[in-house]
Amino acid sequence: MPVNPHPRGKLITLEGGEGAGKSTLLRGLEAHLRAQGADLVVTREPGGTDVGEAVRGVVLDAANNELCAEGELLLMFASRAQLVRQVIEPALAAGRWVLCDRFTDASYAYQGGGRGQPLERIAALERWAALGLRPDITLLLDLPVAQGRARAAGRGDADRIEVEGDAFFERIRDAYRSRAAADPGRFRVLDASAAPDAVLAQAIAGVAGLFERAPS
Amino acid sequence: MPVNPHPRGKLITLEGGEGAGKSTLLRGLEAHLRAQGADLVVTREPGGTDVGEAVRGVVLDAANNELCAEGELLLMFASRAQLVRQVIEPALAAGRWVLCDRFTDASYAYQGGGRGQPLERIAALERWAALGLRPDITLLLDLPVAQGRARAAGRGDADRIEVEGDAFFERIRDAYRSRAAADPGRFRVLDASAAPDAVLAQAIAGVAGLFERAPS
Repeated sequence: MPVNPHPRGKLITLEGGEGAGKSTLLRGLEAHLRAQGADLVVTREPGGTDVGEAVRGVVLDAANNELCAEGELLLMFASRAQLVRQVIEPALAAGRWVLCDRFTDASYAYQGGGRGQPLERIAALERWAALGLRPDITLLLDLPVAQGRARAAGRGDADRIEVEGDAFFERIRDAYRSRAAADPGRFRVLDASAAPDAVLAQAIAGVAGLFERAPS
Repeated sequence: MPVNPHPRGKLITLEGGEGAGKSTLLRGLEAHLRAQGADLVVTREPGGTDVGEAVRGVVLDAANNELCAEGELLLMFASRAQLVRQVIEPALAAGRWVLCDRFTDASYAYQGGGRGQPLERIAALERWAALGLRPDITLLLDLPVAQGRARAAGRGDADRIEVEGDAFFERIRDAYRSRAAADPGRFRVLDASAAPDAVLAQAIAGVAGLFERAPS
């Protein structure tokens, strides 16, 4: 059973476009981390707190199709500000591990790459709204857009973001891949076109380093 | 009947602390402006759009008592970003006048003065989220805190902001008065301890200049 090398816990985030298999991987990875003895908090963005879940409802509601890009960015960071202060930081400070379905990289990809919001604007929000918090490991589920959209199409009603066109999702994939290339120490790019078990195996290998420094 | 001197309309905002009589003044001023022939849009913050009203629900819900100051600031500007783009700017551009119950000054007062959020943070949000839009006239209903709170106490259930202590509302009043002192060309400070008719008369005098430049 791993023991935390430091009092502070680890933050693992999952990122990826539509239909990349994030939900399936989340369940498998959660089971793995718990089996390894991690005292784990699982949460998501937008959401994860009462305030954040209310904001999630506003952001994803397909009826809010007039929501401007600036409003979307601010709502995402409002949810994140609350999640960081109410859930993630207290957990990490208590030595617990946190597995989060999307985090600030998603704003760089969706609101930055997708909606064209300036990166320096997002970076400023990251500093003060998200306390500059960066994950220890970010697992990026990478998949060609057409393949992901074909998978997502089978799910029923599309939310406000899923109704966007292919070019929007290509920009998101490009933004995610650029961020991964710029920070290889933190990112693990997973081939999400593989079978779920194979994706999970990649993810498990990707987070293995977090356990290695545990004292014997 | 006044004619707009420019194609662009005028933005009038109402500001003030709890129990200052803002709602009563709003109704009276709206009637006056319409009687003067203004093609008027009346709106409010947070709110005024579907997205904004949903955000208003989150911000004012007394159950969300864990909402952090950063989250509150971001939610206020999310509502404002949407209101400026969807309602205020299109109206002004079409030559209509806009009467808005609270605007960016309220963030300087409540989130800045009240919650201690840095002014430069609010100023940055004002520039990009609110397009740097400043009202033509801002009517500040000024009232000693104790007097305003005594009035507000008669209204029933307090929202998430109204439950704060006197020191919080003193900081808000101070912030409002400082802003008014720094920009006397835009602000009109009204003595809100006067009778409603007298307050309305002050407000009417305060906006009179907006009509004066109309061509004869």
